[in-house]
Amino acid sequence: MWEKEACQKAYEENRERFFHEWKEFLRFPSISADPAYDKDCQDCAGWLVNHLTGIGMTAELLSTTGKPLVYAEYKGKPDHPTVLYYGHYDVQPVDPLDLWDSKPFDPEVRGERLYARGAQDNKGQTMYVIKALETLIQHDALNCTVRLFLEGEEETGSYGITAAIDELHQSGKLVGDVLMVCDTGAVAAGVSTITMGLRGIVYLQATLDGISHDLHSGSHGGMVKNPATELARLVATLHDENGKIAVKDFYEGVGEIAEADRKLANAAPFNNDEYASQIGVAPVGGESDFTPVERKGFRPTVEVNGFHSGYGGPGSKTIIPDSAFVKISSRLVGQQDPQKSLDRIEAHLKAHAPEGLNLTISGKGVGGPALMLSSESELIQKADDVLQNLSGQPTVFSWEGGSIPVVSSLARVSGAEPLLVGFGLDEDRIHAPNESFSLKQFELGFLYATMMLSRF
Amino acid sequence: MWEKEACQKAYEENRERFFHEWKEFLRFPSISADPAYDKDCQDCAGWLVNHLTGIGMTAELLSTTGKPLVYAEYKGKPDHPTVLYYGHYDVQPVDPLDLWDSKPFDPEVRGERLYARGAQDNKGQTMYVIKALETLIQHDALNCTVRLFLEGEEETGSYGITAAIDELHQSGKLVGDVLMVCDTGAVAAGVSTITMGLRGIVYLQATLDGISHDLHSGSHGGMVKNPATELARLVATLHDENGKIAVKDFYEGVGEIAEADRKLANAAPFNNDEYASQIGVAPVGGESDFTPVERKGFRPTVEVNGFHSGYGGPGSKTIIPDSAFVKISSRLVGQQDPQKSLDRIEAHLKAHAPEGLNLTISGKGVGGPALMLSSESELIQKADDVLQNLSGQPTVFSWEGGSIPVVSSLARVSGAEPLLVGFGLDEDRIHAPNESFSLKQFELGFLYATMMLSRF
Repeated sequence: MWEKEACQKAYEENRERFFHEWKEFLRFPSISADPAYDKDCQDCAGWLVNHLTGIGMTAELLSTTGKPLVYAEYKGKPDHPTVLYYGHYDVQPVDPLDLWDSKPFDPEVRGERLYARGAQDNKGQTMYVIKALETLIQHDALNCTVRLFLEGEEETGSYGITAAIDELHQSGKLVGDVLMVCDTGAVAAGVSTITMGLRGIVYLQATLDGISHDLHSGSHGGMVKNPATELARLVATLHDENGKIAVKDFYEGVGEIAEADRKLANAAPFNNDEYASQIGVAPVGGESDFTPVERKGFRPTVEVNGFHSGYGGPGSKTIIPDSAFVKISSRLVGQQDPQKSLDRIEAHLKAHAPEGLNLTISGKGVGGPALMLSSESELIQKADDVLQNLSGQPTVFSWEGGSIPVVSSLARVSGAEPLLVGFGLDEDRIHAPNESFSLKQFELGFLYATMMLSRF
Repeated sequence: MWEKEACQKAYEENRERFFHEWKEFLRFPSISADPAYDKDCQDCAGWLVNHLTGIGMTAELLSTTGKPLVYAEYKGKPDHPTVLYYGHYDVQPVDPLDLWDSKPFDPEVRGERLYARGAQDNKGQTMYVIKALETLIQHDALNCTVRLFLEGEEETGSYGITAAIDELHQSGKLVGDVLMVCDTGAVAAGVSTITMGLRGIVYLQATLDGISHDLHSGSHGGMVKNPATELARLVATLHDENGKIAVKDFYEGVGEIAEADRKLANAAPFNNDEYASQIGVAPVGGESDFTPVERKGFRPTVEVNGFHSGYGGPGSKTIIPDSAFVKISSRLVGQQDPQKSLDRIEAHLKAHAPEGLNLTISGKGVGGPALMLSSESELIQKADDVLQNLSGQPTVFSWEGGSIPVVSSLARVSGAEPLLVGFGLDEDRIHAPNESFSLKQFELGFLYATMMLSRF
């Protein structure tokens, strides 16, 4: 069982090499959303297999219906538990590219941060876990059996691994006691945080078209339905004036917030003014009868991720666009059924579609359902002890708004108890230009992973 | 006074040269909306001065606050009227470029059409007038004095010429009896059409921002107002459920449709099914208690020309966009005041703007007011005679939906009576990819212009 000091010594001795290898990992533009980067995803997965073999694990690529799954195993000592670890090597797209201060796949340390797409989400957090495993294996201090699952489609719905889950379970790989995940955030630098909940996710694209070409807005204005205007009107039907989702039966399964959870969630440090100064706007979105923290942790959303129609260049262009499309994603909570939720959004859009234009629904994706953990469990207590030891202050129990769609499925099939501790911060700008990760948080992640893994 | 046969003979003898020169004119990418094409606009104007000098006019470039104005004069015989001619050498932007079958500035004849940006609007129609002038001058058959005004900012609001109108009038240039314009359309191939009305136009851009960067839609979904969703909700407030514009006092000055006008307008050939088969959708937009023809000719619009926010690439990207913008233009009718109308739209947007985001109004433009002609005038009768002679069937009197913002101002200041006859067709796809002009309609334009100009 390693304590903080031993972990820190190991970190300081290897820090420069860790950074070098982290950067190697980040140089692969493993963007899963864009087929143009398929080869880069393959290359990234291959690099991981080599790297994991190098640290003393047996590693292989498992093919899926999509991107390959990296699987690695370390056989521990008898009478010790089996720890499953889940992470992902794929990253979000990088546009708008001109807003990046350095190239997204040319990692660069500036100040106390490393900048690159994936620097945090999830290559950075995966890297400190790999380095923790390496350290314990080198010192013969890893007692538990470890099974690593690193997928390449987390940012696009985890289809490949999700389709393979039953087979992975039957083959004996996806069997374990603990499901460790480091793909979440901490509420503030240096403050340890256990993620107690994740939202589910579904998404789709809606397109209005039918007009044969962009029309002169004078010759045709008042004749045809304007696709941009009509899509705006359609999007406007998705919420009522209080920010509540207006899709029929959408709140089925959402459930009341338990009073204990509500207290614990609202006890987490959150300050409206601080949020506004960091993000630029006040947290006044969503349903008006919940606090921002409650809205993020316990309430569903229907969000527009993109809306495009017609002319967007300089000056004016007096056209009626021939079409308009919107990309929508929805976060789910409690017992909301993902497929039903997606069907309900689709049915709502169809029911409110304008006559005189064609509505097409495409790009439908069902991620995982939501996930809720219990603060009473022994595993959570053990993690809390390690984290308090590391930070010297109380651990924050946080209900995250994000989704790791596959985690709830992995937990359910494997029977393993999830443990979600991560060291990301809001300032990391994941999914946005100039993503970065604090070197200090990377170190904390390494210390946590090493201490925790040495305790199983 | 030239009759049809003489005009046709001249056309046939010179047709290939006319096409050659028309193509030369079209090769200038004189896009006024994009400052990147400033030099090309200058070059195009310079080419026109040379060309007009070549056909026997005195021509010069008049500088304005914007693009140069091409001015050319031909001194006619005493006791003949002065004809002002107005046209424009600027064109609309060309994106999306990948939808063009040939390069927009590399004119190409395919079948009986010439394809290029500006092929019709307005370079094509300007070209047949220039060739008509050339033909009459060559044969010493041009009796009237002609003053040509070709501006370079029609597609962006005609600011330069509008600002110069009073000075042009005082210098004696903008003084005349007839204001001839060939920038309108015909209801069908071979059917002569006199345009009896044009709508006015104003435009603006509205932007919602304030968020410092694209946000993760999980970590921030339900926290902030989503700019794309909120802009959609704002756009949705612009019309009521019957397609009526919901901006306060917007219909002030619109006026009732006179019964005679309504009959004449609805007598013009228009068929819902034909429209749908040509445009792809049925003409069911706009205010539900007017016919399509009435909505186009006599009713104002507020149209979205473009709406852009967030991710638009392949697959999904689960962000809350940091901003959203919409380009809006509005067509005006009757006595609607352009400045007041623009102010009202701006005030509406501000009054309905969401809290938690910043609304910025930019790119405001005031074009001209609407213009209505009288079917009783001698000039209109004279044109009708020529047109009936050309086509062998009754002339259609058409209320167009488009705008030539500066024409009403030119008419008002000069005291000249407007005469708007053009040969454009819906199928020309002006303002859209694959703009083209029928060679047959170009010939009709030449015949009309030659006959008409020889009659003053």
